[in-house]
Amino acid sequence: MDYDKILPGIIKKTDSKILLIVLDGVGGLPHPETGKTELETANIPFLDEMAANSSCGTAVPVLNGITPGSGPGHTSLFGYDPVETQIGRGVLECLGIDIPLDKEDVAIRGNFATINAAGIVTDRRAGRIATEENRKIVSLISENIREISGVKIEIRTVKEHRCAIVLRGSGLSPNVSENDPQKDGSPLKPIIALNKSSKKTASVLVEFEKRVMELLKNEDTRAKGILLRGISKLPDIQSFEEKYKLNAVCIASYPMYRGISKVVGMDIAKTGETLEDEIKTLKEVYNRYDFFFLHIKKTDSYGEDGNFDAKVHLLEEADRKLSFLKNLSFGSIAITGDHSTPAVMKSHSWHPVPLLINSPYAIPDEVKRFTERECAKGILGRIYSSEIIYLLLAYSLKLNKFGA
Amino acid sequence: MDYDKILPGIIKKTDSKILLIVLDGVGGLPHPETGKTELETANIPFLDEMAANSSCGTAVPVLNGITPGSGPGHTSLFGYDPVETQIGRGVLECLGIDIPLDKEDVAIRGNFATINAAGIVTDRRAGRIATEENRKIVSLISENIREISGVKIEIRTVKEHRCAIVLRGSGLSPNVSENDPQKDGSPLKPIIALNKSSKKTASVLVEFEKRVMELLKNEDTRAKGILLRGISKLPDIQSFEEKYKLNAVCIASYPMYRGISKVVGMDIAKTGETLEDEIKTLKEVYNRYDFFFLHIKKTDSYGEDGNFDAKVHLLEEADRKLSFLKNLSFGSIAITGDHSTPAVMKSHSWHPVPLLINSPYAIPDEVKRFTERECAKGILGRIYSSEIIYLLLAYSLKLNKFGA
Repeated sequence: MDYDKILPGIIKKTDSKILLIVLDGVGGLPHPETGKTELETANIPFLDEMAANSSCGTAVPVLNGITPGSGPGHTSLFGYDPVETQIGRGVLECLGIDIPLDKEDVAIRGNFATINAAGIVTDRRAGRIATEENRKIVSLISENIREISGVKIEIRTVKEHRCAIVLRGSGLSPNVSENDPQKDGSPLKPIIALNKSSKKTASVLVEFEKRVMELLKNEDTRAKGILLRGISKLPDIQSFEEKYKLNAVCIASYPMYRGISKVVGMDIAKTGETLEDEIKTLKEVYNRYDFFFLHIKKTDSYGEDGNFDAKVHLLEEADRKLSFLKNLSFGSIAITGDHSTPAVMKSHSWHPVPLLINSPYAIPDEVKRFTERECAKGILGRIYSSEIIYLLLAYSLKLNKFGA
Repeated sequence: MDYDKILPGIIKKTDSKILLIVLDGVGGLPHPETGKTELETANIPFLDEMAANSSCGTAVPVLNGITPGSGPGHTSLFGYDPVETQIGRGVLECLGIDIPLDKEDVAIRGNFATINAAGIVTDRRAGRIATEENRKIVSLISENIREISGVKIEIRTVKEHRCAIVLRGSGLSPNVSENDPQKDGSPLKPIIALNKSSKKTASVLVEFEKRVMELLKNEDTRAKGILLRGISKLPDIQSFEEKYKLNAVCIASYPMYRGISKVVGMDIAKTGETLEDEIKTLKEVYNRYDFFFLHIKKTDSYGEDGNFDAKVHLLEEADRKLSFLKNLSFGSIAITGDHSTPAVMKSHSWHPVPLLINSPYAIPDEVKRFTERECAKGILGRIYSSEIIYLLLAYSLKLNKFGA
């Protein structure tokens, strides 16, 4: 069974609005001393009240046991198959620093690396050079290498040893092998076209690699060459508007999430750095859209650092600020995460995330708290994150009956 | 993973009997004043007792968020993929009034419509003419158009402006465009063959459309022509007997459900209009079959009308009558619905329906009531309706071990 076969025949445009709130990395694990998770420890009256008035459940981001990166975590939430719709790392790196990409462009993650005279990569990160040093090198390259064989080249600093490169021109293909040997002490790998249509791209990259080494040869930096990785194009997918007939907007303070939203064709609202800024933006654009993706980054960051108390604190802060949404009206609201980031693991994890769906047509269940263990008792049961968008469409009455 | 790949190797015929009771549109939503659903409001001691002695859960009719019509709602319950096994609207209309269909026949829904001299459809429903007027028109057409180019034509009254038409002959195909312009004030659309093999069917329908207009031209009726819609054939699927080795019978007072059962190859038991009649029939045919599909229509009708109290009343009535089943023995019994029809929505909905499976091998859980919220806590969890038949086979010990 497949939503794609059903949807075109039943979807309809209506005036009702949908809100998807993603608390990045919201799920956690019990603290060894208290036995309570971050959400169970936090004082989150708004989220708890929403849970009490909603249908609750848990969402598996990709598949049971699979820990998603931000890419699959979000493509799932947007209703795309996260395996079929993989966004290349080069594309994510570019979108993450707001470099615009066209369907024809090839996007690449770059590492400045230390490479000796014999072509051996002695340090894949060039001693993690400072971001300022990176900027100087990138300026030098930008000024000297603007085009190779008619292909325009844009290079931009990310941070430390990392940069992003975009090739722009016709007939480009990402099917090219990477030159990164993956470990220190090994020689640079040759850049090879993996099929006929990528010969041009491979020759441009071989030339680019060579010219960068020449430019850096006599510079006062440990960066003596560039590793080209995650060579990729935008995935060829149906846009959000085509797929769901939704006029959608992304409100996210972090570029990466704006980037993923752009890949699925959402409009990107200009917003500031904080959740207050985001909520202000949501109110400003409220009349212009019928789908709102509100991304809250902060809840993830302290999870990755292993700082349990700081994550609790940020969950409480997000809860207070989200309460300002009370005055806006939506046909359906989902609050969930893109994945768990338990502080005790200091990383993303595979654990399902709490989920609530609020709508006049949602049966409130007995769940009174927005936590991992309480939501697991909810009436929605355990579903896949990729199903949430279809529930949101249903609960806001945007789907006609299927079959007579 | 796919049942069809496993089943042929593990299914066995045994003496045990399976009963599938479908309470049409059984699921509901809370009444705004009481906060209780129709099932939660109703006094249903038999269903509650069954729930207390059974494994409970909820069933998603098609996919999360998808609201099924009666066709997909039932093909799912019969274990067929409701997306791959769509039953055309013409087929459903014919089966709904007990017109027998062969695999070769083309079935069509007809609307008598008002069409002016310029060929503009001024009223797609001919002012919803009375059923009696429809019968007179259908008699006139039947007497005058029995055959076109060797293709036999049967036309029958459904009600008001609606009729059903069957074409019988060799080499017929349903891949023909409809002449219904879909809105008043537009001209009739041309009937066109959509591929080579449907040219004959298209030319028959063009001639039929023309002759009907000639016949009605001088009649005293607003019906001046016919819109031909839902042109379809029986789906080409494995029969119930082939797929499950079950000798199955349908007991349903409404023709539509007898029709869907016939599509999957069930025998159709003669029965009366009421649930009492159906239960009497079940007792009569009990010795002759090993699978019984008992369909209870009434629970749906008041949901569609938005009459909460009447739906509650009919649930209570069904509960009293079902208690007469107590004396019959089955290897496994499932009680569920084909979809929800909340009175507050006045329509089918996507909400999962309560499900119980009763069998000596089913673990009773803590669920004591047959309601949406209680069954959601049951040991079966949330499954798809299309999985129920496999559980029924398993719980009645009709499936051997898979693999060594």
